[in-house]
Amino acid sequence: MDKIKIAVDAMGSDEAPLNDVSGAIIAAELKPDLLEIILVGKKKLIDDELFKHKVKLKNISVVNAEDVVTMEDSPTESLKSKPDSSISVGINLVKEKKADAFISAGNTGAVMTASILKLGRIDGVGRPTIGSIFPSDVGNTMVFDVGASVDCKPKHLLEYAIMGNIYMKNIYGVSNPRIGLLSVGEEKSKGDSLTFETYELLEKSGLNFIGNVEGRDILRGKAEVIVCDGFVGNVILKFAEGVLDVIKGKFKAYAAQGFFKKLWIGMMYGTLKNVVLKDFDYQEYGGVPLLGINGITIIGHGKSSPIAIKNMILKAEEMVVKNVNEKIRDSISK
Amino acid sequence: MDKIKIAVDAMGSDEAPLNDVSGAIIAAELKPDLLEIILVGKKKLIDDELFKHKVKLKNISVVNAEDVVTMEDSPTESLKSKPDSSISVGINLVKEKKADAFISAGNTGAVMTASILKLGRIDGVGRPTIGSIFPSDVGNTMVFDVGASVDCKPKHLLEYAIMGNIYMKNIYGVSNPRIGLLSVGEEKSKGDSLTFETYELLEKSGLNFIGNVEGRDILRGKAEVIVCDGFVGNVILKFAEGVLDVIKGKFKAYAAQGFFKKLWIGMMYGTLKNVVLKDFDYQEYGGVPLLGINGITIIGHGKSSPIAIKNMILKAEEMVVKNVNEKIRDSISK
Repeated sequence: MDKIKIAVDAMGSDEAPLNDVSGAIIAAELKPDLLEIILVGKKKLIDDELFKHKVKLKNISVVNAEDVVTMEDSPTESLKSKPDSSISVGINLVKEKKADAFISAGNTGAVMTASILKLGRIDGVGRPTIGSIFPSDVGNTMVFDVGASVDCKPKHLLEYAIMGNIYMKNIYGVSNPRIGLLSVGEEKSKGDSLTFETYELLEKSGLNFIGNVEGRDILRGKAEVIVCDGFVGNVILKFAEGVLDVIKGKFKAYAAQGFFKKLWIGMMYGTLKNVVLKDFDYQEYGGVPLLGINGITIIGHGKSSPIAIKNMILKAEEMVVKNVNEKIRDSISK
Repeated sequence: MDKIKIAVDAMGSDEAPLNDVSGAIIAAELKPDLLEIILVGKKKLIDDELFKHKVKLKNISVVNAEDVVTMEDSPTESLKSKPDSSISVGINLVKEKKADAFISAGNTGAVMTASILKLGRIDGVGRPTIGSIFPSDVGNTMVFDVGASVDCKPKHLLEYAIMGNIYMKNIYGVSNPRIGLLSVGEEKSKGDSLTFETYELLEKSGLNFIGNVEGRDILRGKAEVIVCDGFVGNVILKFAEGVLDVIKGKFKAYAAQGFFKKLWIGMMYGTLKNVVLKDFDYQEYGGVPLLGINGITIIGHGKSSPIAIKNMILKAEEMVVKNVNEKIRDSISK
């Protein structure tokens, strides 16, 4: 069997190329016979980083890309002004079949835009989508769209449901994912003009549609896939990240009030982390795919650790192995 | 000076009439010379409750209402089918100037609908709104609308900003509230069709508009007033309530794993409550007003404790004393 080739944006994370290269090394060492990693970015910086790790892995290669897209760059402008960016070069590798997938912890909008424009959408998909995993005690819930795909039409939410269904089946092993429609009440009569029409489409879709779900249901594992307009999903995702920051900040401020308080928080923190915070830590999840494009792109948080990068690579591998895009193509065409 | 008369829905909370009557007694005892409480609901049940407390307060009276609107009742139908409900009778007291304000921990939709239909909207207000307080280390942020006023138009969000501005000024003493527009990015160019148009209106409004804010900014105290479509606000509010439930649930589950874990969680809980949970506890805030109507209605959570009910009564009093509705009338007419 041919190795699976994953192009890794070495300039993506906030700590690039350190975290990106380290994560790639972990993945390459973990699966020497299955994975081939192509690090994309400023070759000199990447080589220095590889040298520091004192490893020489046969399954890691480097492709030079001189430009770097920053978090501040405009997605569409950067595509034109920085044609030799690690994002553009990496996605071109996928386009030219020199890589099976691309992963990046860089500018989300730029990765999305470049992926959609260079790789194109799967036939029948109006809008590619990014989802986010929200963990609960009874399983994982994935919300689509959180990628700020705004002013969605009902058919877009139907597409999210179809693609999310396949993703949760194949990547999370859920046999018949429950699909919920995010709204302001459980009754069919509660919602706005978008949810009313989407409800009708989902009812007729043949999916395991369980009706409306509310904001509080996202963390209750009531459905494996929850669909909503990308404005709503993005606001919730960022709010959720904000909650964690606030909680951590409050503990820090309390600890700063004195030695014993610091000691006490230190004692509590291990439990807190294991009981609450771990589940909400995006690092564990290793990025999310941009679904609906002709190719595989996994997008991660700028703060991604080496472990998160490693997990993104493994997720990309799984997307390839399980033929997720083929299955989406089949489902959408129906 | 005449006492301020507050009509209290005695049948509102999940523990009605216990919590509602207890809360009313606390408020009445606290301000015997300033407040007059009118308990509205099934007279016999209320009298029994008052008798149990063995208090006879001169500033508490009872007005009978035989019907009770449940949480399951449809707001509009209940208004017709239960004309003698505590909600309808209580709001009628305000309409007939026999009370200065009405507070209820009952069915939010029913209280909203009855208030709007019976008391009418302030001239120039297209949509009355409910906000919710989100606390932060640097102050309080109030998000409008969280009352599920869906498919908002830009002018509605402008109204929310104007009313929220006056509310935060008068009730929270913020001299020049910063107004934020909830969106998917800070730049003016980020958002959906609703935010683009609203941005223009807010820029010209003369308010202290600080531009777009994101989901994470809600808990960061970046603005005192954040406006959004009621669909988005309602989903976030319920998501936030869900987060607290999940955190509490996780600690409970951990404690159930054994004696020492239970002991340990017990030891930690006091700190947790003081450091994190207290700030997120809606009981502390005592309900929120329905702004934009010709009268004062304060709506609380079904789970309201006696303290929350007491706080709702005090909030209603403050709304009267500070002439909030007069000020909204002035501002909107400009």
